[in-house]
Amino acid sequence: MTEAAAVRRSRLTPEREAELYTAVLDLLREVGYDALTMDAVATRTRASKATLYRQWGGKAELVVKALRHHKPLKFSDVDTGTLRGDFLALAARQDDCRMEQDSALMRGLAMAAHGNPDLLKAFREWLVEPEMDELRRVLRRGVDRGEIRADNPAMPFVMHMLIGAFAARTMIDELPPTQAFLHAYIDAVVLPALGA
Amino acid sequence: MTEAAAVRRSRLTPEREAELYTAVLDLLREVGYDALTMDAVATRTRASKATLYRQWGGKAELVVKALRHHKPLKFSDVDTGTLRGDFLALAARQDDCRMEQDSALMRGLAMAAHGNPDLLKAFREWLVEPEMDELRRVLRRGVDRGEIRADNPAMPFVMHMLIGAFAARTMIDELPPTQAFLHAYIDAVVLPALGA
Repeated sequence: MTEAAAVRRSRLTPEREAELYTAVLDLLREVGYDALTMDAVATRTRASKATLYRQWGGKAELVVKALRHHKPLKFSDVDTGTLRGDFLALAARQDDCRMEQDSALMRGLAMAAHGNPDLLKAFREWLVEPEMDELRRVLRRGVDRGEIRADNPAMPFVMHMLIGAFAARTMIDELPPTQAFLHAYIDAVVLPALGA
Repeated sequence: MTEAAAVRRSRLTPEREAELYTAVLDLLREVGYDALTMDAVATRTRASKATLYRQWGGKAELVVKALRHHKPLKFSDVDTGTLRGDFLALAARQDDCRMEQDSALMRGLAMAAHGNPDLLKAFREWLVEPEMDELRRVLRRGVDRGEIRADNPAMPFVMHMLIGAFAARTMIDELPPTQAFLHAYIDAVVLPALGA
C-alpha cells in the first residue's frame, strides 16, 4: 500500500468499512452491477459520495473489493500439510448456502465485466489474481513436498479446471456448486491431472 | 421431429432458413440478446413475424437454433479411431477466428440465460444436451476400444473440464480459446484425468 493509499484508508474504521461492503453486496444482489449507482450506495449507507469516491475511486473498485472482503478465509491461511488437504480446505471456505449466493454474484459480475473495461481490470486485480497467487503457493508447497512435479503440463491449467467446475455446474447440472461436488471434482479431475 | 413440427419446418427452404439464421447471428452480435427483437429480425430478413413465430415459436428458440445451425461440424461426424484424435477433432471444428466470434456469442447467451428461463431451457436443449450426447458417444467409443475405463471417476466431469477451458480462458488469460490452447489442455488435463 502506498502512503497516499494508507492515508485514504485510515479515514474509515474496519467496522464501518465492513458495514459499507455489506450494503454494497446487498444492493448488488437487488439490482445487479449495471443498475447499481454510487448514489444508491451513499443513501443506503448514509455515507457521502465524496467519501466513497475518495476511498474507492469508483463503482468497479468498490464492488470488487466488497466481494473480496466478503471471502471468509484466505487460501494462504490454510496449510494442511498435503495438496489434497489444501484443495479440500479451499472448497470448505464457504458453506453451500453462501457458495450459492456468492457464485451468483461472481457470475453476474463476470458477465458485466465483459462489457466494462474498468470492472474487468478491477475484477482481475482484486479477485482473480489474488486467488491465482494463493493457488500458486498451494502448488509450490505440493512441489516442495514432492507430491507433484513442477514441470507437470497440467500446472498452468489448475485455475481453468477449478473455474470450469463452478462455471459448468450451473449450466450442465442446473445446480449450484456444493462442497460435495467440489470434493468429487478435486479427487476425480484436479489431483489425477496433476499426477498427485 | 413430430409431424406438426415437420409441417412447420417444410414452409422454409434450407437456403432461406440458413439466410435467416445468419441474419439473427448478425443482429445478436450487434445488439445482444436482450435488445434483439422479433421485429428487427423480420425487418432485416424481410420475413413476416407470423412466419418467424410459426417456424420457431419465439426469440429464445430462434436464437439458439441459429447458433446451433452455425456449428460447422457435428461431433458425431468425427470418428478418428482414438480418443485423443476425437478430442483434437473437436478442437479443430472451428478455426481460431470463428472460435473467438462464437465463444463471445455463446458467453453472451449463457449470461442472458441466467435471467431468462425460456432461453435457459432452449440453450440447454439445443446447445448443451446435443454436445453432451456427442461427447458421451466419443467416450463410449474410447471405453469400447479399451482406452479408458467406464468407471473412471472423471467420466462425469469431461464436459465441466471442457467448458472450464473456454470459460476461464478469457477471464484468466485475457485471450480467446485457440486450437493450440485446446490441444495443450486436452493433453495436459482431459486425457490424464481420464487415465488415457
